Amino acid sequence: MENSATDGSGCAGTRQTLGTRMQKTRLSLTRHARELTAEHGFSGFTVEELCARVGISRRTFFNYFPTKLDAVFGHADDGLPAGALERFMEARPAGTTGISPTLLGDLVTLVLEQLSVDDAEIRGAHGFFGILHKEPELLERMMKIGPERQAEFTAMVAKREGVAQDHSGIALLLHTLQFAGIRAIERYLESPEGPTLAEEFLHVMSQARELFAQDLHHDTEHTA
Amino acid sequence: MENSATDGSGCAGTRQTLGTRMQKTRLSLTRHARELTAEHGFSGFTVEELCARVGISRRTFFNYFPTKLDAVFGHADDGLPAGALERFMEARPAGTTGISPTLLGDLVTLVLEQLSVDDAEIRGAHGFFGILHKEPELLERMMKIGPERQAEFTAMVAKREGVAQDHSGIALLLHTLQFAGIRAIERYLESPEGPTLAEEFLHVMSQARELFAQDLHHDTEHTA
Repeated sequence: MENSATDGSGCAGTRQTLGTRMQKTRLSLTRHARELTAEHGFSGFTVEELCARVGISRRTFFNYFPTKLDAVFGHADDGLPAGALERFMEARPAGTTGISPTLLGDLVTLVLEQLSVDDAEIRGAHGFFGILHKEPELLERMMKIGPERQAEFTAMVAKREGVAQDHSGIALLLHTLQFAGIRAIERYLESPEGPTLAEEFLHVMSQARELFAQDLHHDTEHTA
Repeated sequence: MENSATDGSGCAGTRQTLGTRMQKTRLSLTRHARELTAEHGFSGFTVEELCARVGISRRTFFNYFPTKLDAVFGHADDGLPAGALERFMEARPAGTTGISPTLLGDLVTLVLEQLSVDDAEIRGAHGFFGILHKEPELLERMMKIGPERQAEFTAMVAKREGVAQDHSGIALLLHTLQFAGIRAIERYLESPEGPTLAEEFLHVMSQARELFAQDLHHDTEHTA
């Protein structure tokens, strides 16, 4: 599983050879599966109905996803624009030992790329995660898939940095960036006339960063 | 609901008059309800069986919790040692405008108090949250109660600081502290011979804090 995220730096693995048209179809399946879930509930539509919306056959569906549940959660690679992860993995400054001094900036760039998809996509995904807790089957899968993907991504970043794959600082940072992203989307959707999604995200991150710059202890000057 | 957290600064509200013995009984109900859930599953025991373990009557049970589900999640006030929240609320330095320069330190102190309960309590709570996702009824309640308690606590901290009750920086900081606490508990339980739980927590926080000190952008020097 970890492979799906880490083998992306140029080698012609099977995942990388997935054509643009196939990737569009896969993404379209997930979008429509989420729409149908919002409209009818997860058990309120069939794979056939989903296929009809996307314009593919039931047989073709199984080239993309093993089950309807997998389609609605989407493929791990579809959460980011093409090449974003590869660019992140290659952005570590040459000659660095230990954590890159640009790690936070590189991760912020990655999140900004993730947030740069069109508004319909943002709304669709946000709406889906908003109703997910109402459906036990979806919630159960989420509780499994969420931590798995987070652990995979932590391991990938840790690999880039050459530190232990469950490095707590990195795990915490990624968790915080994810929360900041969700928060930014909420703020953005609440006032569409206000700042852009990227501005909202940077605002939330700046606020948190200022708070983190405070002392951890009252009685000491230097705690880092 | 917000009241349960904010009216604690000395006034003799009904919550504060709960005697020490009653608080012990309430806590004991939650501990045993979690133990029984771990042993038999949530639907594998009755309120009567729970009461028998704690040594109270079924009638008395309802003075503490309206349902078995409420007992297993516990009372919001029982997550912290007595007085900890009041001390936090009163710790804001007099004469401060805007966010206190000691906010992070005050919150770290609060988490350290929260983590200072005995090992059995830590293991019990951690074990419960670890099995929770296996029981749809528990998971559903958790998805409701988790964000509610988080929003309440954010509002309380924001009130202390005199900022908007959904202040993003504070929400993010609290979320991160919670994640750091869970992470510290995991590390601590994995190697009981290693550092103390407090040391693990401070270690995780220090690592994250170093990462947050990096620049948000590559192209600017000052981003905060």
